[in-house]
Amino acid sequence: DPSLKVFTLNSNKDLAQEITENIGLTLGKNSVMRFSDGEVQINIEESIRGCDIYLIQSTSAPANEHIMELLIMIDALKRASAKTINIVLPYYGYGRQDRKARAREPITAKLVANLLETAGATRVLTVDLHATQIQGFFDIPVDQLMGVPILSDYFKDKNLDDVVVVSPDHGGVVRARKMADRLKTPIAIIDKRRPKPNVSEVMNIVGNIEGKTCIIIDDIIDTAGTITLAANALVEYGAKEVYACCTHPVLSGPAIERIHNSKIKELVVTNTIALKEEQQIDKITSLSVAPLLAEAIIRVHENSSVSTLFD
Amino acid sequence: DPSLKVFTLNSNKDLAQEITENIGLTLGKNSVMRFSDGEVQINIEESIRGCDIYLIQSTSAPANEHIMELLIMIDALKRASAKTINIVLPYYGYGRQDRKARAREPITAKLVANLLETAGATRVLTVDLHATQIQGFFDIPVDQLMGVPILSDYFKDKNLDDVVVVSPDHGGVVRARKMADRLKTPIAIIDKRRPKPNVSEVMNIVGNIEGKTCIIIDDIIDTAGTITLAANALVEYGAKEVYACCTHPVLSGPAIERIHNSKIKELVVTNTIALKEEQQIDKITSLSVAPLLAEAIIRVHENSSVSTLFD
Ligand SMILES: Nc1ncnc2c1ncn2[C@@H]1O[C@H](COP(=O)(O)O)[C@@H](O)[C@H]1O
Ligand SMILES: Nc1ncnc2c1ncn2[C@@H]1O[C@H](COP(=O)(O)O)[C@@H](O)[C@H]1O
Repeated sequence: DPSLKVFTLNSNKDLAQEITENIGLTLGKNSVMRFSDGEVQINIEESIRGCDIYLIQSTSAPANEHIMELLIMIDALKRASAKTINIVLPYYGYGRQDRKARAREPITAKLVANLLETAGATRVLTVDLHATQIQGFFDIPVDQLMGVPILSDYFKDKNLDDVVVVSPDHGGVVRARKMADRLKTPIAIIDKRRPKPNVSEVMNIVGNIEGKTCIIIDDIIDTAGTITLAANALVEYGAKEVYACCTHPVLSGPAIERIHNSKIKELVVTNTIALKEEQQIDKITSLSVAPLLAEAIIRVHENSSVSTLFD
Repeated sequence: DPSLKVFTLNSNKDLAQEITENIGLTLGKNSVMRFSDGEVQINIEESIRGCDIYLIQSTSAPANEHIMELLIMIDALKRASAKTINIVLPYYGYGRQDRKARAREPITAKLVANLLETAGATRVLTVDLHATQIQGFFDIPVDQLMGVPILSDYFKDKNLDDVVVVSPDHGGVVRARKMADRLKTPIAIIDKRRPKPNVSEVMNIVGNIEGKTCIIIDDIIDTAGTITLAANALVEYGAKEVYACCTHPVLSGPAIERIHNSKIKELVVTNTIALKEEQQIDKITSLSVAPLLAEAIIRVHENSSVSTLFD
């Protein structure tokens, strides 16, 4: 179908390449450069008039640079008469700033949604939003894909015995439940509590993990504090071994060192965010979301349902 | 007036401090920090409910970072019930991307205008837009201040003899004319032409500059290629000495080295963009726009005219 074209920017070119190959296309030609003063210079180098554009960009770090690249490219596509501009955001940055946790804070996840629409995006395809409510921040259609099936299939193939899926906090129980359903295992929950103000947190575990193989699941691993403390607590409380997994490997600051030094046997992530070279350590396995995103793009383009992808 | 509050972000804190002192206020309290992954974390640390906010930020390099800080702060101000959000942009970044110079280019100057309005800006106060047309990219009121009077007054005080104001290209003649009117001098124009394709440009000079003191004026000096070539050509054609001036010292890449090595005797700029330490060389004089911007803020707040500032 010559009306379907896939473009990408600077955040995750390998993934974009892989998605495009999976669809059976080649990437659209565009240049993304910088003027001498650092301003983004974008040019689209082929006609896209009347085309359905799928523009792949994670708004991962450096988030501000990747967001501005994306907005400027959307502007260029709009002015070059694209028929539809479908934004494929494997990772939706600023997703954790999704509410006012304190007075007079911004809600940047909503701001970014408004900015994308203002620039001219007509549809969004994304993977594991930090909060599903972010879909409602948009007035254009949003399709959200899930990382759980990909992560679950990987562990299913490992044929581990006596598995428990563990949520590292109360907010992640729904996700852990979904994975446990796929693996047909029980779940456990790390139940952090601060007994009194200014007293350090106590880690309790709800559920039976003694002698079991634990798989901790989260959506994002950023500084890896939560997940490595959880892993070490599980081992202390008698777990046999501990795996961890997440969809989005943000892995900032001390993350790699913490993971390296932790009791985690293997950390399984996806390539919604490209791993930098120094993040490609033995303990980390990266699974590709390219086949999933390619299939989703084809379905969106054919006007068929994306949700059945997970049946 | 307790309803007037001035805030700033990271681009140009010294200028913001100076403007605020000129108004007779202290800067509003807000924090602009980064999460571990580099995402902007903003918090407003005093009540601003019902206030008229003047938010000072140049969208100078790194432009994307400064634009995102600005958008996120506007979002926070809006959600904290500011009455009006007046954006003070001493330098409007991306101003040169104000038209499609080639097919399928973005018009980023327009995009940024849309983004600022979407975030919640209610008015813009700025200095020397690269093209006055950018005012029309906004649907909210835009007041544009001029650098020419400040630069002209500086040269007037120097009491130079036999001055000619020089425009470095055809696009800058209107600006040169304004300065020449203030200094009561003639003008000259550097008239670059390419005689044939693939033959290097020839510099002609329209107007008489022999034995004269030339002042070249531009709005932006970025890599300083244009201005240093112009200065050297003027000297070659017999100018006695050459000064240069501009409102916005972008000064990227080889700019400082070129200025240092050029025939320019003195380069006069304003502080719409903060000079980095390595940019503070002897040849460069920086004039403050703080009194002008302070007066403009007071007038806007009192609903009186800003244009009479230049009478
Ligand atoms: N990039 C970020 N890194 C760390 N924390 C963040 C980031 N963005 C937002 N937050 C904070 O994370 C909290 C939300 O995280 P959660 O409770 O996991 O939904 C809020 O209090 C935010 O202030
Ligand atoms: N940040 C920038 N640095 C250098 N050139 C730019 C920049 N932004 C836009 N331009 C180009 O500058 C030209 C406009 O400059 P001008 O002719 O002086 O108005 C256009 O062709 C733009 O592509």
